Amino acid sequence: MVTSALERALAPFPLESVPASHARRFLEPGPVVLLTTRHAGNENVMALGWHQVLEFSPSLVSCVVSRSSRSFEMLRASGECVLNVPGSDMLDAVVGVGNCSGEDVDKFARFGLEREDALEVDAPALPQCHALIECRVSDDRAVERYNLFILEVRHIRARVTPRPPEYVHYVGDGEFMLSGKRVSRKRLFRPEMLGF
Amino acid sequence: MVTSALERALAPFPLESVPASHARRFLEPGPVVLLTTRHAGNENVMALGWHQVLEFSPSLVSCVVSRSSRSFEMLRASGECVLNVPGSDMLDAVVGVGNCSGEDVDKFARFGLEREDALEVDAPALPQCHALIECRVSDDRAVERYNLFILEVRHIRARVTPRPPEYVHYVGDGEFMLSGKRVSRKRLFRPEMLGF
Repeated sequence: MVTSALERALAPFPLESVPASHARRFLEPGPVVLLTTRHAGNENVMALGWHQVLEFSPSLVSCVVSRSSRSFEMLRASGECVLNVPGSDMLDAVVGVGNCSGEDVDKFARFGLEREDALEVDAPALPQCHALIECRVSDDRAVERYNLFILEVRHIRARVTPRPPEYVHYVGDGEFMLSGKRVSRKRLFRPEMLGF
Repeated sequence: MVTSALERALAPFPLESVPASHARRFLEPGPVVLLTTRHAGNENVMALGWHQVLEFSPSLVSCVVSRSSRSFEMLRASGECVLNVPGSDMLDAVVGVGNCSGEDVDKFARFGLEREDALEVDAPALPQCHALIECRVSDDRAVERYNLFILEVRHIRARVTPRPPEYVHYVGDGEFMLSGKRVSRKRLFRPEMLGF
């Protein structure tokens, strides 16, 4: 069940498609993401902070998925997922998801996570989040050694206007930092370094 | 040249050694880092936002280093580097470093970056930063394809007390977000999920 307060807060900021090459806008600042998967009639969600951008075009990102998680086997089997970037209004759901297993509980229901079909991959997306980054596994050669999946971004939808989001960043030991002030230094950039 | 204001601000917060397995404390929140290298009598520094944590023990992190940078060849040749995590008081130096090449200018001098020898690797470290993460390349198999270096953390020094740092996070297009409020959710964590 969605809290109606969250629904009301999000209504004025619709999800819009964003070029796949812009994944850095949402991932490079380092937020915790909620990784969603679907396989063989099951859906799951996990919290994940070990990810990075690899390339603009093709749009590639990587992430480590713990081998002990159900999501590991589901991602391996389906080859598809969504990296959903929650805002700070979802902090307690993020913590809840990160501290239980899909084997024991329906995490979507328990933490009030709405889901809908992703547009280009066979996985659920979480439309309460700030950005929904749909991905396909493009290289699994580092999975055996590091649990490291290399993903190609297929589609991004995000709430880009009007205000910048406040993300959730994990620092370990049960503590988070929230995104703070935005500052521009465009004037100090070489023109070819601007853009996303 | 160090600004005396920065020197005075840092003086009460000495660098302390921290277990190498705690790299997530400094990298998982997603700050821009300054990567420093030394090779064949040259030293260089670059700004880098594409990194992630891979493993606690051995302590592994990965990062993408642009192939067009001098640092790419220096890291490849030396196999060692330091990931220096600057605080927001160094934002303009970070931007400056990210917008010029070591072929044209001595970036250390131009942006007032003090340097000293790292403790366990042959590279300069930047003691004005909040954390100095000394690394050795442990796996270069993904370098050809993705410019992705897998690094083993050999030593960490950081200013851990008394206040949490404010990092710099890049969101693209010349804009940054600074780290904001710290919030604890320890009470919602399973005990085995706590610690760093």
